Amino acid sequence: MNRALEIATDVRAGRRSAVDATRDSLAAIARENAAINAFHHVFHDEAFERAAHIDRLVAQGIDPGPLAGVPFAAKSLFDIEGHATIAGSRARLDAPKAQRDADAVARLRQAGAVLVGTTHMDELACGATGENPHFGSVRNPRDIDRMSGGSSSGSAAAVAAGCVPLALGSDTNGSIRAPAALCGVWGVKPTFGRLSRRGALPYADSLDCIGGFASSVDDLAALYAILDGHTTRERRDALKVAVLGGFFQTYASQEAWDVALQSAASIGPCEIIVMPEDDMQRVRGAATIVSNVEVAAAHANLLDASDETVSPRLRTRLLAGALSSASWYARALRYQQRFRARMSRLFADFDVLIAPCTPFEAPRFCDATIMVGTHALEPAKHLGMLTQPVSFAGLPVITAPIMREGRMPLGVQIIGAANDEAACFTAARRIEQSFTNTQRVSTET
Amino acid sequence: MNRALEIATDVRAGRRSAVDATRDSLAAIARENAAINAFHHVFHDEAFERAAHIDRLVAQGIDPGPLAGVPFAAKSLFDIEGHATIAGSRARLDAPKAQRDADAVARLRQAGAVLVGTTHMDELACGATGENPHFGSVRNPRDIDRMSGGSSSGSAAAVAAGCVPLALGSDTNGSIRAPAALCGVWGVKPTFGRLSRRGALPYADSLDCIGGFASSVDDLAALYAILDGHTTRERRDALKVAVLGGFFQTYASQEAWDVALQSAASIGPCEIIVMPEDDMQRVRGAATIVSNVEVAAAHANLLDASDETVSPRLRTRLLAGALSSASWYARALRYQQRFRARMSRLFADFDVLIAPCTPFEAPRFCDATIMVGTHALEPAKHLGMLTQPVSFAGLPVITAPIMREGRMPLGVQIIGAANDEAACFTAARRIEQSFTNTQRVSTET
Repeated sequence: MNRALEIATDVRAGRRSAVDATRDSLAAIARENAAINAFHHVFHDEAFERAAHIDRLVAQGIDPGPLAGVPFAAKSLFDIEGHATIAGSRARLDAPKAQRDADAVARLRQAGAVLVGTTHMDELACGATGENPHFGSVRNPRDIDRMSGGSSSGSAAAVAAGCVPLALGSDTNGSIRAPAALCGVWGVKPTFGRLSRRGALPYADSLDCIGGFASSVDDLAALYAILDGHTTRERRDALKVAVLGGFFQTYASQEAWDVALQSAASIGPCEIIVMPEDDMQRVRGAATIVSNVEVAAAHANLLDASDETVSPRLRTRLLAGALSSASWYARALRYQQRFRARMSRLFADFDVLIAPCTPFEAPRFCDATIMVGTHALEPAKHLGMLTQPVSFAGLPVITAPIMREGRMPLGVQIIGAANDEAACFTAARRIEQSFTNTQRVSTET
Repeated sequence: MNRALEIATDVRAGRRSAVDATRDSLAAIARENAAINAFHHVFHDEAFERAAHIDRLVAQGIDPGPLAGVPFAAKSLFDIEGHATIAGSRARLDAPKAQRDADAVARLRQAGAVLVGTTHMDELACGATGENPHFGSVRNPRDIDRMSGGSSSGSAAAVAAGCVPLALGSDTNGSIRAPAALCGVWGVKPTFGRLSRRGALPYADSLDCIGGFASSVDDLAALYAILDGHTTRERRDALKVAVLGGFFQTYASQEAWDVALQSAASIGPCEIIVMPEDDMQRVRGAATIVSNVEVAAAHANLLDASDETVSPRLRTRLLAGALSSASWYARALRYQQRFRARMSRLFADFDVLIAPCTPFEAPRFCDATIMVGTHALEPAKHLGMLTQPVSFAGLPVITAPIMREGRMPLGVQIIGAANDEAACFTAARRIEQSFTNTQRVSTET
């Protein structure tokens, strides 16, 4: 279901008003949010004003843009002019109001989209579960006893619950991919460095990417085209595809591994590339050092904050970063360069690489550990273990949600060469066509 | 005097043998080196073998390449197949022998050039004076009571003394530019990241560049073309030029500032861009953190080495790096990104920027401090203060030697936009034409 494109087409043609689309979105938020806790702030008056402006443009024969009247939400780490940027942190509740919109928000607004709210997230984006001690956990719209995944929890849940057709998120070690997989929506994390991060509160400079969510590949491509500034020319030729195995198989449940294999097979004949476990654990270690050091550098002031405003979990991470030696960090950055070069060489032989996205489906909030093979994995520590190595290499990834009758969805990472988002989108369309049930939203299940 | 191109032209035409050119170079080394201490190792037999091979190719009608028979020297941090890479460090005297040539050395050899020796340098490239406690100071060929500048001391001195027409060096905070200025030879430090550093012992990953020296712009362009892999298309239009003032004027002697102004005027009408002192001091601080941290990460093993093998000065630097916090380092790297962006914006209005290269002419070894205005500057601490901010921005720089009757030479930095080495070379030719006395070598003065 191309909800965003249907709205935009109708609004541009004058068949439906932007005010109407905004009203529908706000009604859905009012209906769903109490259960899922996806939204931090909802912009009623501002959204209606903006929608009315779009409608006036249409009435005057002026095209408001390719996303005319499409309601969207933004993870609360994006600057919104006139509002404090909270980023899931109680310490930021009295942060100064942003002087201007983040670039990504501004681009969507310029394309005619209507911001209806900001969404909850893990504290300062440090987390993969969607749990937040200050603002409450974001619950999975497909089963509210389960985690939404994080850190772009609210944005993924808002799309999955049908509150908005599009939402902005950010991904450092898996923060778009994990919630997309767990909530069952499409997510795009572009190539590192490709999209402007201006106005997005930093977590880790060497890893942060902005991106977003949608409920179809068409909508996701429309969102990405606006963020990137031009339409991605997709590919028509056969794609050469491989599946990342080894570490990625060991730490995936049987069903998570199976959907990765099935997804790859829907694109074309494929082989398995064994990624050695010790290498990937080294990558995880290096990515963790880089993340901790950079979040501590960006938010050093929070080390002085009270226990009420900084959770013990975040403080531990900030301390780990602040106390790290520069030599370790320098070596981790050097290792990242080498790993990027090594991963990029795989694309001499393949157009896309497929990997499971999370080791398991959305955990219940009460799950202390989940067994994968002989490994007892903790959700908070291990939800991102299959996404972290891919973002460390800076590669673009689309997460495909694989919907399963009567079960929670599972996610698949579609990984492209640097700046080859086009191959990811082409592969995503083929997977979407093969798994025809991917387009249902939770309210229909 | 285009010594390299004259030799290559003659050798390729069969008018002169490569063996002859090699013999001349080795004779000059034998004559000059006792006084200046530029060479660490001289390759007699290997050089003659290689030269004889070049001559055989010519006799067979095969072109040995654009640098046929040109003798060259390499700073002792470049890997030479079959030899240990010493890099001015006693601790490396029993380092394993290199398995293959560094890329830069291999490229020159493939172009027909003949390696005649490796050159002395500051310990592990950490220094700007050319003093080395293990292998002795490199002395300035134009006055052996004066410093050569460093850390590519021996390479600059070898060219200035007429021992070789071309030499390889490396530049982290000024290690090509300072000795070029003090010894009075042309030097090129290309854009950060442009030339392969494979086989060059690292000092600071985020700053290291390889480059080289010659006694004319033609020779320097020929050297750079081989290292870069293709000929730089120089510009014929008028260049827009500015002089970096403020900090760069405050810490330059009157005569160093005057030659910068004169050099700029020889290119075209120019204005002065005031670079605020506090900004530049912050840049110096950040560059120092980055340098110390990265050298400590690359050479952590030396912290355990004895006092005989690691000088107190280097050990202090390694300790400073090893004990730095990762947060400081992360902030320094972030500051580098911002400074790069800021400097690159200057090139919207200008093609080249001119700045003095060192605060003063080559100091005497006995000079504890040198007065510049009201500031007492120590050579070891301040020789690189005008070069360090420019390399922190990653910009390409050609150092022009400005020769002065009866005085030591002074250097001028010709700074281009990233990857616009072409503009630097065009400006260099205009400066060379204006200062006709730049082509004398020390043996003639």
